[in-house]
Amino acid sequence: MSASLAYDTAPTASPDGLLGPDELEAALRDIGARRYHNLHPFHHLLHGGKLDRDQVSAWALNRYYYQAMIPVKDASVLARMHDPELRRIWRQRIIDHDGEREGDGGIERWLRLTDGLGLPRDYVTSTRGVLPATRFAVEAYVHFVRERSLLEAIASSLTEMFSPTIISERVTGMLANYSFISKDTLSYFDKRLSQAPRDADFALDYVKRTATTRELQHAALGALSFKCNVLWTQLDALYFAYVEPRLPPPDAWTPGAERRP
Amino acid sequence: MSASLAYDTAPTASPDGLLGPDELEAALRDIGARRYHNLHPFHHLLHGGKLDRDQVSAWALNRYYYQAMIPVKDASVLARMHDPELRRIWRQRIIDHDGEREGDGGIERWLRLTDGLGLPRDYVTSTRGVLPATRFAVEAYVHFVRERSLLEAIASSLTEMFSPTIISERVTGMLANYSFISKDTLSYFDKRLSQAPRDADFALDYVKRTATTRELQHAALGALSFKCNVLWTQLDALYFAYVEPRLPPPDAWTPGAERRP
Repeated sequence: MSASLAYDTAPTASPDGLLGPDELEAALRDIGARRYHNLHPFHHLLHGGKLDRDQVSAWALNRYYYQAMIPVKDASVLARMHDPELRRIWRQRIIDHDGEREGDGGIERWLRLTDGLGLPRDYVTSTRGVLPATRFAVEAYVHFVRERSLLEAIASSLTEMFSPTIISERVTGMLANYSFISKDTLSYFDKRLSQAPRDADFALDYVKRTATTRELQHAALGALSFKCNVLWTQLDALYFAYVEPRLPPPDAWTPGAERRP
Repeated sequence: MSASLAYDTAPTASPDGLLGPDELEAALRDIGARRYHNLHPFHHLLHGGKLDRDQVSAWALNRYYYQAMIPVKDASVLARMHDPELRRIWRQRIIDHDGEREGDGGIERWLRLTDGLGLPRDYVTSTRGVLPATRFAVEAYVHFVRERSLLEAIASSLTEMFSPTIISERVTGMLANYSFISKDTLSYFDKRLSQAPRDADFALDYVKRTATTRELQHAALGALSFKCNVLWTQLDALYFAYVEPRLPPPDAWTPGAERRP
């Protein structure tokens, strides 16, 4: 976001003084403990087996747009890095999502999930049925990393510090509770269990080394809060459209539509 | 949105052939008839007197962010116009919202509504309590007019064709149903009843004159659909956070907080 768009995405309770590196890490982890989307009611319904196949399909379809835009986001970050060493590390994220060849990579593995749920691939990849709120949240993330500082762009990726927990809850819960979910259709998450901590370790180290003033630390904490909002808001929209009051907006996917026989 | 962000915001039922100017106008009006936010359940609750003072406050607080960003949006459109005649017309929108002097203009009149609801001005103008989804939707609009064609930027303003109806429903319903709403606190809408049709007439004429190929007409229709989504999604988020299940996300305004005594 450019200055004209940015009011205040920093957490309300921002630390007053300069933090040591470990205190900064603790403040970042505290944001996750209070705002990560594992706390959202839609996540509880999802891994607790309380959703039907249509509702799980809506989640997978919308989340596809997020997955598909992650390499666009990471390429935007990469384009702002003037240090080859940084770029060599960051480019691995794009490789992980796009794969070495067709049929490989994280986006492809996400499509195994939507395949397993019976959604036609060309419909999923067209993203025609995605909720407008999903689109707005994901695009806010891409704009954020293009328009804010590199420190903020990197700090906004730190939700990956918290992803192993939500992934293991999702995989265990979904396998136990849904007959239409298999280990194969959830293969996306297997890889992420090793990729996310590696990526998060690097980003956390970068943020701890770079955020050396109060203002920079404030910016890094605000970036992580912003990213938590990006994830949280996507689940709000899914809840509104497909759980209660179940009112998908015009043009969004509706249960029963676009289902393979 | 740049090409990388744009999948397909066009309406699903897009006309096949080139439309005459009046047919194009009819197709634009048809989008409003199907997708304008006067059809949203939150609007029905609002003008039907079914909301309490806190819920109306949440609406006014969030909508403030939209109002405050409209001149930023219009300045972005203005910056893309290379024709002084066009700019002379368009700049009136900015004057209307910002006023001729302090204490004047549409944003100021919106603050009379939040004043009347007991929300402190500095809290409202800080936009700290705004829902993340409001922010994402409004910023999507600003990015859209910066990144799409001028035709699309202008066409996206055409929701003003439909605003006299929703304004008269709102004003009549809110005055009749809420003791905490007065004619003075709703003064924003009085002015808009004359400003919006003047602005819409110009924009509609521009779109009808400029969209002279199938592709341009498709783009103009898609821009209006996009804008309907921007408005619609804001009401989805208000419904989720303040009506049902009433779960405002972290940092968003909660009823009772930040209320003047």
